[in-house]
Amino acid sequence: MVSTKSWLTIPKGSSFSLANLPFGVISTEVAPSPRIATAIGEFALDLSVFAANGGFAGLDTFGQQQLSVFSEPALNAFAALGKSEHYKVRIYLQSIFSENTPHPQILRNNKDLQSKVLIPLSAVCNHIPFLIGDYSDFFVGLHHAEKAAKVFNITLARNYKHLPVGYAGRASSVVVSGTPIHRPQGQIVRQLGAPPVFAPCHDLDFELELACFMCKSNPMGHPIPVDDADDYIFGYVMMNDWSARDMQAWEMGPLGPLNSKNFATTISPWVVTSAALEPFRTGQLPNEHEALPYLREKRQAAVHDIRLWAELKGSSPSASGTSTTLCRTNGRYLLWSFSQILAHLSISGCPLNPGDLVACGTVSGPDRASHASLLEINDNGALSLDIGNGESRTFLQDGDTVTFHGVCGDDEYSLVGFGTCAGTILPAINALK
Amino acid sequence: MVSTKSWLTIPKGSSFSLANLPFGVISTEVAPSPRIATAIGEFALDLSVFAANGGFAGLDTFGQQQLSVFSEPALNAFAALGKSEHYKVRIYLQSIFSENTPHPQILRNNKDLQSKVLIPLSAVCNHIPFLIGDYSDFFVGLHHAEKAAKVFNITLARNYKHLPVGYAGRASSVVVSGTPIHRPQGQIVRQLGAPPVFAPCHDLDFELELACFMCKSNPMGHPIPVDDADDYIFGYVMMNDWSARDMQAWEMGPLGPLNSKNFATTISPWVVTSAALEPFRTGQLPNEHEALPYLREKRQAAVHDIRLWAELKGSSPSASGTSTTLCRTNGRYLLWSFSQILAHLSISGCPLNPGDLVACGTVSGPDRASHASLLEINDNGALSLDIGNGESRTFLQDGDTVTFHGVCGDDEYSLVGFGTCAGTILPAINALK
Repeated sequence: MVSTKSWLTIPKGSSFSLANLPFGVISTEVAPSPRIATAIGEFALDLSVFAANGGFAGLDTFGQQQLSVFSEPALNAFAALGKSEHYKVRIYLQSIFSENTPHPQILRNNKDLQSKVLIPLSAVCNHIPFLIGDYSDFFVGLHHAEKAAKVFNITLARNYKHLPVGYAGRASSVVVSGTPIHRPQGQIVRQLGAPPVFAPCHDLDFELELACFMCKSNPMGHPIPVDDADDYIFGYVMMNDWSARDMQAWEMGPLGPLNSKNFATTISPWVVTSAALEPFRTGQLPNEHEALPYLREKRQAAVHDIRLWAELKGSSPSASGTSTTLCRTNGRYLLWSFSQILAHLSISGCPLNPGDLVACGTVSGPDRASHASLLEINDNGALSLDIGNGESRTFLQDGDTVTFHGVCGDDEYSLVGFGTCAGTILPAINALK
Repeated sequence: MVSTKSWLTIPKGSSFSLANLPFGVISTEVAPSPRIATAIGEFALDLSVFAANGGFAGLDTFGQQQLSVFSEPALNAFAALGKSEHYKVRIYLQSIFSENTPHPQILRNNKDLQSKVLIPLSAVCNHIPFLIGDYSDFFVGLHHAEKAAKVFNITLARNYKHLPVGYAGRASSVVVSGTPIHRPQGQIVRQLGAPPVFAPCHDLDFELELACFMCKSNPMGHPIPVDDADDYIFGYVMMNDWSARDMQAWEMGPLGPLNSKNFATTISPWVVTSAALEPFRTGQLPNEHEALPYLREKRQAAVHDIRLWAELKGSSPSASGTSTTLCRTNGRYLLWSFSQILAHLSISGCPLNPGDLVACGTVSGPDRASHASLLEINDNGALSLDIGNGESRTFLQDGDTVTFHGVCGDDEYSLVGFGTCAGTILPAINALK
């Protein structure tokens, strides 16, 4: 067990304690090529420069030719090395930063290298961490599904508690936190039975989700056994599955959402490894139906206790500068675990690959204060949420910024956090003039 | 206008006449690296070796540094050069093979180069032609939608004639013609109201579709105007959207198909360019609703007159060797054109990219003999199709091979064909033992 104390000053309450060490892709103004980094305290450690300057000299079991993965513009190659390699690298980096590091000469006592590899997080530009292959989104937040059904006065689909319900999403529009989001346009039916009109989305919503990035392939035709699925998961991010509710209502039947989801999906930049989240395993929501054998997981604590919350900041003169908490929820509010989701996604023989992104769906809690979308919070527009300064929201307005936060742990010096996942809504582009 | 006659012997009835020149990716036993080729008559022209041996010396407007695109293992880089470049290359290759070629010294009179670059199609291994980014599938075959609705005793969705209904598909399981397909397994409800069981799919079906590969990006937030959409299409392939009907019936609601489609999708190996198909433009099916402006296309002849047919060959001793025609249909049986599909897919601001694959859905004709899936032909299992030798099929059995053919034109010496798109069903793998 490595000491949770570092020679590097890590502020109390930092999401990026020594217990975390998430991986991401960064660039800087002076070195604009995207490359791999880890986050620690208020710094990014540039792993490309660190590797090139003998930083991994103390890790003799990690092949030197493998060090090139840190100069790649995405985590795919590092991820594809397999979980034992990620584990080795993370443990080694923990030892490098530990106050009683066995390798003081590598970084602790090497001010020159420190100046080259430790970059203030405020000075880095984050990039999308993986070149995404396929992106799939699920719907396993039970409270979300139940509240949505209640709002629309329907019952849960009969299949809902027998399998993780999901759909294929759009990989090309997954963007990293901070990327502005243009309000989508499309077909909307404003009154039941009326013909559709073409207009900018009116009912623009957020959805707070978790998602995993994959690090291993299964061959086509060969499903992933549920108890092996964890080997396929590199780590996790927070995800905002922006949703155009008015467009969605019209287009959903019979083949599911398309334009109401494909315009943008925002993810947090730092991928928190499975290993860092392991201490926070907890039980998922109970299911009165026994799962079919291919979904029956040996592990009881199959989901993670992650405190998640969303904030909204408006841009109007009166709202500017104040943030309102939209919801506080938890990563444990899932009916199916990520392992069960991967077992189901591949049960047909579908091949999954490193760089695939798989999300669980909206992670809502049981009450309004923990509902993780405005659809639920405001009963699909029937209510509106006071955001202070006399302003309120039923759905998102242009200029609104939605920011997610996610943290595990109680010790303020060893938190495992996700950082933030933020996006600001810009007006629709009238490109068809 | 180039002569349709070539100095190379092109058999009467060949799909790959001088009027075609589709692009694909090949390898051979002696040169196993995948590379770009075109098909002509009974040969593949290896464009990588052709380029390396001065084959493009007569095309001075095509940059020499661009020639490296032909050594790539996929068509993405060539496609991304843009339609004016594809056009130039195809017209140049037509001139090279023309009986009155202005460049006889390059290939016609150069037996040595002929021996290096002309490889019998029977000796080439075809690969997936593009590295696929996102794959989207639509449902715009009106006769298919109407027949499916009739079989299930439901009405067409209210949105159906207002927008091209579609969904995101699984890119990782798109395979090239000839790849064997393992029967998928999953959850099936055998009797209305009964709980699901885990079993190999029983109701395994084919769907005959057309699909386009893209060659141009639109920036996120900026939809593709419908009248510009053709600039984004490199060319077309035939596609078999294998479908597990029993799994689909259980999983479809509310988010659309997942495992019932994600196990495999087969495409034909030679991408027929938009330019080669241009002479076969024809009108699409009429729509009593006027399209919204963003879907209103100036061009009247927006789809293609492509004769399409499907054959089934069983593997049982009695069925072996005989082929049965499953259907004869036509590429014109679409309610929306591919340009309209791309305009709709991007109207939300969704970015599309070179290498994206976009399919139209099952291209059925109006009667049983032109229905392009067994669901329609056999009224979802109520009927069975005589396939000769005393055998019949309601759905596909292990060992069955389904082969699609597609051809444009009447002159047997200048056909523009797609070749074949074939797949054989293998038993499910019991990987969970």
